[in-house]
Amino acid sequence: MMKVLANMPEFQSIVSMQDLDVAEVEQLIGRAEDFKAGAQLKLTEPVYVSNLFFENSTRTHTSFEMAERKLGLTVINFNPQASSMSKGETLHDTALSLDAVGVNLLVVRHPQNDYYNELLGHSDLSLGLINAGDGSGEHPSQSLLDMMTITEQFGGFTGLRVAIIGDLTHSRVARSNMEILQRLGAELFFSGPRAWYSEEFAQYGTYLPIDDLVEKTDVMMLLRVQHERHPDEQAFDTQAYFERYGLTKERASRLPEQAIIMHPGPINRNVELASELVEGKQSRFVTQMQNGVYMRMAMLESVLRGNHLGGLV
Amino acid sequence: MMKVLANMPEFQSIVSMQDLDVAEVEQLIGRAEDFKAGAQLKLTEPVYVSNLFFENSTRTHTSFEMAERKLGLTVINFNPQASSMSKGETLHDTALSLDAVGVNLLVVRHPQNDYYNELLGHSDLSLGLINAGDGSGEHPSQSLLDMMTITEQFGGFTGLRVAIIGDLTHSRVARSNMEILQRLGAELFFSGPRAWYSEEFAQYGTYLPIDDLVEKTDVMMLLRVQHERHPDEQAFDTQAYFERYGLTKERASRLPEQAIIMHPGPINRNVELASELVEGKQSRFVTQMQNGVYMRMAMLESVLRGNHLGGLV
Amino acid sequence: MMKVLANMPEFQSIVSMQDLDVAEVEQLIGRAEDFKAGAQLKLTEPVYVSNLFFENSTRTHTSFEMAERKLGLTVINFNPQASSMSKGETLHDTALSLDAVGVNLLVVRHPQNDYYNELLGHSDLSLGLINAGDGSGEHPSQSLLDMMTITEQFGGFTGLRVAIIGDLTHSRVARSNMEILQRLGAELFFSGPRAWYSEEFAQYGTYLPIDDLVEKTDVMMLLRVQHERHPDEQAFDTQAYFERYGLTKERASRLPEQAIIMHPGPINRNVELASELVEGKQSRFVTQMQNGVYMRMAMLESVLRGNHLGGLV
Repeated sequence: MMKVLANMPEFQSIVSMQDLDVAEVEQLIGRAEDFKAGAQLKLTEPVYVSNLFFENSTRTHTSFEMAERKLGLTVINFNPQASSMSKGETLHDTALSLDAVGVNLLVVRHPQNDYYNELLGHSDLSLGLINAGDGSGEHPSQSLLDMMTITEQFGGFTGLRVAIIGDLTHSRVARSNMEILQRLGAELFFSGPRAWYSEEFAQYGTYLPIDDLVEKTDVMMLLRVQHERHPDEQAFDTQAYFERYGLTKERASRLPEQAIIMHPGPINRNVELASELVEGKQSRFVTQMQNGVYMRMAMLESVLRGNHLGGLV
Repeated sequence: MMKVLANMPEFQSIVSMQDLDVAEVEQLIGRAEDFKAGAQLKLTEPVYVSNLFFENSTRTHTSFEMAERKLGLTVINFNPQASSMSKGETLHDTALSLDAVGVNLLVVRHPQNDYYNELLGHSDLSLGLINAGDGSGEHPSQSLLDMMTITEQFGGFTGLRVAIIGDLTHSRVARSNMEILQRLGAELFFSGPRAWYSEEFAQYGTYLPIDDLVEKTDVMMLLRVQHERHPDEQAFDTQAYFERYGLTKERASRLPEQAIIMHPGPINRNVELASELVEGKQSRFVTQMQNGVYMRMAMLESVLRGNHLGGLV
Repeated sequence: MMKVLANMPEFQSIVSMQDLDVAEVEQLIGRAEDFKAGAQLKLTEPVYVSNLFFENSTRTHTSFEMAERKLGLTVINFNPQASSMSKGETLHDTALSLDAVGVNLLVVRHPQNDYYNELLGHSDLSLGLINAGDGSGEHPSQSLLDMMTITEQFGGFTGLRVAIIGDLTHSRVARSNMEILQRLGAELFFSGPRAWYSEEFAQYGTYLPIDDLVEKTDVMMLLRVQHERHPDEQAFDTQAYFERYGLTKERASRLPEQAIIMHPGPINRNVELASELVEGKQSRFVTQMQNGVYMRMAMLESVLRGNHLGGLV
């Protein structure tokens, strides 16, 4: 059953899509497809992993835990609210403690951008690290599962027209995806409220109103409006947002036949897209979540190998 | 060791006692007794279960987790406070995500009556579901462990005199139990504050003051006063409640010799009953909790079979 | 690989260092060193353990969980905030429930001194118990891992000069350690704010200013300033504390060469000691945390044996 890729990538940590070159992204997609086809990993030594989620999460958290259990890792529980961080301990000192008690690998989500700089490159820490999302920075596992889902549909990226639409400012998904999509050869467009399209995005792609995009897009990547990050939430009119920027049924009807609709979840129904579209033929939300487990297995394996864990050879 | 009943019931979900006919209740009790006697289940494929408890619980939550582990299921952690439901995601979309990442079975407790209608009968969900309590609706696992405990004492239900006493209005235990007890052939009585005895209960049994009941009751089912659900809590006089409606030592002394005292827990000592009675000879509180694990194993097995999980044949 | 000590101690519970005589402490250290050298325990029956942490913890909580998993115990999750204790259930009744559902062993941290008296010596409870810290009472697992760490450095305790420095009033670590260190034959000194040195400590050792101690101390045990327990926190001047009572680099430079610096964690850097010293040659913080897992394995094993759990012979 098990098939090890000739060039299985090995990493000490994965914190940003910029850590990965195009070949490595393709190798990880290949390995995730192996797992999806039933490949199994046989660990000969126990590996201990802790998932440190300092932001709320259902999909990413349970997806990583599922991936860990499918690989046979032992999960050591960690609840931030019940930890010594509430007594003022730093993330670095917390990681140092977990390392000392024998945790081999951390999966961390944290509200602060680049929090991982506190953990990497310190000689006192020997833990492997996977970034499960840092503030509005990066979200590499989401990005990789998105690339896997696109590859399943289109076979590749060259010339593919991808639109990233919505709450760009707060989106680590947008940041991780635009970076790798450009390198993979896709053509990028952005949409949503114009005010959320800044200089940062201009170097990756053009802004267009959604009505000018729908007919010529292969991949519509909708971003969640992150209500909890908008200071001025009271003023936000979800109905107006839906009408001006959302994927209504009418707009969806103008998509090319082969186009797919993606969303990292959780979806605000009738805000980013019409609720009826969630279960539609072109939606890939469920596929994204399914692929997420297999991609995270591939990422975890590459970090196990990079840290010589689990007795893998 | 393992003995599979000829007529082991199979269910896609168990959410209400009304899902079960009398024969199925008896089969589940039989299977729970098998587990109590040491029967083991051998799963040949991994099964992933998540326990979603949106209300506080010690007994039911740990009892389900213990049953799951004894059956060899893999528990995927889920903490409602740390989930995306705090970002506004619905229970249905949360279940959809858990389903997509590969969770096979949900055990859910939720403050809203009939919350499960949001989850059942949707073609997009393929998860098995066990209701671990919905608002003031139903509590089928408690009801089944209660029936098991009564069966152990009396062998059957025909003509058995059962009194359900206390906080009827808020009690899902009362609702689940009166429904099935009537079908099983028991004679029902209610007691406690008269104001808590409404039309709904009249069709199942007669109201009587506790002093008129104690001498002719086989089973005293005491219900917890759910302080947290009484809006006017300040006014509640626990001493007065105990004296008028509680099982005092004096009242307990008038119970028939074979009678048993039950309570779903947690017990308010010296409110529903005298503290000294908790460890008394006629109390079945510990037996109820012990039986709960075996009954939940039986329920879980029936839902595994109903969803073709675990490679059971 | 496995080597069982001839005189492996057996306990029903471990709640205080006063439960242990000197020989038992030495046996536990010996057994912990076995585990550190790779000894493994082979359970032939499943053992279920719950960790009940009513105070925040990273080190102790994850260390116990790691020890449990390395021994092959099955951890049943328990979250105090989501338990029935938030409905007013007592710790005793909670333990009774966990016992009834089949939990064999509790590891408990609780803010109330001597909370364990509520659990011990009750005929209705058959659970084993390990105290993971009670208020300002005791912290036996920390104490034992400290004794193990000192033994590794010095081989024994007779005549060893140990200074316990800092927040004595609130420190269960100080209480557990001074008691056992005296019995083991060490010479004790205390330092830190004089107001925190009370009668209670005088019977164990002398108070000295830190500058009079550094040159003649073998073991410096620094205690965390427990900011969260000081009512008058605003007035606390961390800079002044560090200068008067802390281990500055200058003071550390005057320590004897063989001396070691210990701290139970979490460390307040630049309060109890200079941040640069944390990773210094004489620091044993990481060793303490590493040893903690092995010592807790030894403690758990002795309680498994004392309760005839796991099929150990």
